[in-house]
Amino acid sequence: MGKIEGEWKEMDKKLRASIRLQAEEWIFEAGEMIRNKMSNPFIIDTKTNKNDLVTEVDKKTEKFFAEKVKETYPSHLLLGEEGYGDKVNNLDGTTWIIDPIDGTTNFVHLKKDFAISIGIYHDGIGEIGLVYDVMNDIIYSATKGGGAYKNKKKLSLLSKEKTINKSIFSFNHDLLIDDDHFDRNIIESFVREIRDTRTIGSAALEIVNVAEGNFDGYVSKVLSPWDVAAGYVILNEVGGVITRSNGEEVNMLEKGTIISSNAILHEKIIDNYFKKWCS
Amino acid sequence: MGKIEGEWKEMDKKLRASIRLQAEEWIFEAGEMIRNKMSNPFIIDTKTNKNDLVTEVDKKTEKFFAEKVKETYPSHLLLGEEGYGDKVNNLDGTTWIIDPIDGTTNFVHLKKDFAISIGIYHDGIGEIGLVYDVMNDIIYSATKGGGAYKNKKKLSLLSKEKTINKSIFSFNHDLLIDDDHFDRNIIESFVREIRDTRTIGSAALEIVNVAEGNFDGYVSKVLSPWDVAAGYVILNEVGGVITRSNGEEVNMLEKGTIISSNAILHEKIIDNYFKKWCS
Repeated sequence: MGKIEGEWKEMDKKLRASIRLQAEEWIFEAGEMIRNKMSNPFIIDTKTNKNDLVTEVDKKTEKFFAEKVKETYPSHLLLGEEGYGDKVNNLDGTTWIIDPIDGTTNFVHLKKDFAISIGIYHDGIGEIGLVYDVMNDIIYSATKGGGAYKNKKKLSLLSKEKTINKSIFSFNHDLLIDDDHFDRNIIESFVREIRDTRTIGSAALEIVNVAEGNFDGYVSKVLSPWDVAAGYVILNEVGGVITRSNGEEVNMLEKGTIISSNAILHEKIIDNYFKKWCS
Repeated sequence: MGKIEGEWKEMDKKLRASIRLQAEEWIFEAGEMIRNKMSNPFIIDTKTNKNDLVTEVDKKTEKFFAEKVKETYPSHLLLGEEGYGDKVNNLDGTTWIIDPIDGTTNFVHLKKDFAISIGIYHDGIGEIGLVYDVMNDIIYSATKGGGAYKNKKKLSLLSKEKTINKSIFSFNHDLLIDDDHFDRNIIESFVREIRDTRTIGSAALEIVNVAEGNFDGYVSKVLSPWDVAAGYVILNEVGGVITRSNGEEVNMLEKGTIISSNAILHEKIIDNYFKKWCS
């Protein structure tokens, strides 16, 4: 691991900038491969193979990143869903937390609205966040302390004048359905208070929509680290916040609930609604 | 009105084609005006004026169409939300059913994902449907019997192999909240059966997503004729269906519930879920 091998003690800014550029280059290359696959009618129109296709693309894309990272940064670790990463027990050194296709249902059904999500963490701190909307060719990116960008446009800090009753929140409809951990009545009262709701079906894209100020928050039942690692860095750079539904810090080695929002609303919605939500 | 004045007895195909081209031209002109307004930072960044802005753009756009239609087709009527249309008591003759901005909340909050929606009906029959995704510059269009298009690409007929448990439905989260007319438990069982849910926040864009096969259906509580008039024509051309939640025909002079879907699923979901839904 980076720290142990002494590659650096803290993330050097120049090195970070070069890693970010390198990661973006790989993302664009992977995106191009995915778009080529999607535009091949022989592949995409074989309806019975749609689930196989997403599995194949998911695995190939993660493998692509795993090989690139290992080759270029042999001390870095990779944490991913598809099995080409490392067994990561802690976040010492530098770890790439990768979701090769965030929004697989959208990939299969809509052939759009999915993303490549890469968060690069150094000694537990989110240093680089990259979310690439593949079909729209839009990259959301951020470095810690360096601001967040949508392509080349710097994103503004989130408004500090938001109120819950004028806000738009994104979350899946399943929040309104009881399960062992969630009380739908609380979410119902939340839905009644906010202005409106949306659902994209890709956590990474939903979080960057919060960062862009399109949504005022995104809430989810259990998500994995790779669903949120990149969005976490991006949202922090515009003054947004991501925590667990009880307000606790997100541990990037564990699954858990997610509440991401404009910082102004965060404490209020946790206190008023989501603290009561988890058993 | 057209029929009474004897302009035509039934919608002539050549005339229809020319009306469609004319309507598209006006839509692109209106879209350009809206995009210009949206890209003016002095206008769009005045946060307190966001609601005023959408009201202004809504009214100006409807007025633009009303003037164009009256000037070019003096016998046609216009049915719209913003007050520049006619008092329409029946659908005799030719009627333009217009929503100048479908998805006003998206217009205000997201600055995208809203549409101009124009359905042109002749003696009650939907002859032309146009839904223009303004910020993405994508027009969905159809003429009765002439197929449906996304820009210049003809849309395929919807799959006949869909099952409810593999389908994606789009609807607002408020369907999962009780009110006088709706039983949330029925929708909950529906959500448990289908694969996934989405919410865009523009009925017109949600219906064309059904027509494109991205979603397998879109369901809504009360909508107005201008929300669905264009989508109705477009969806019909790919083999989709729109009815009220009890399966009844949509009357384009009245508000009501909407269930639009792949024809294969339509009867089943009405029988299994939505017939029980309305009081």
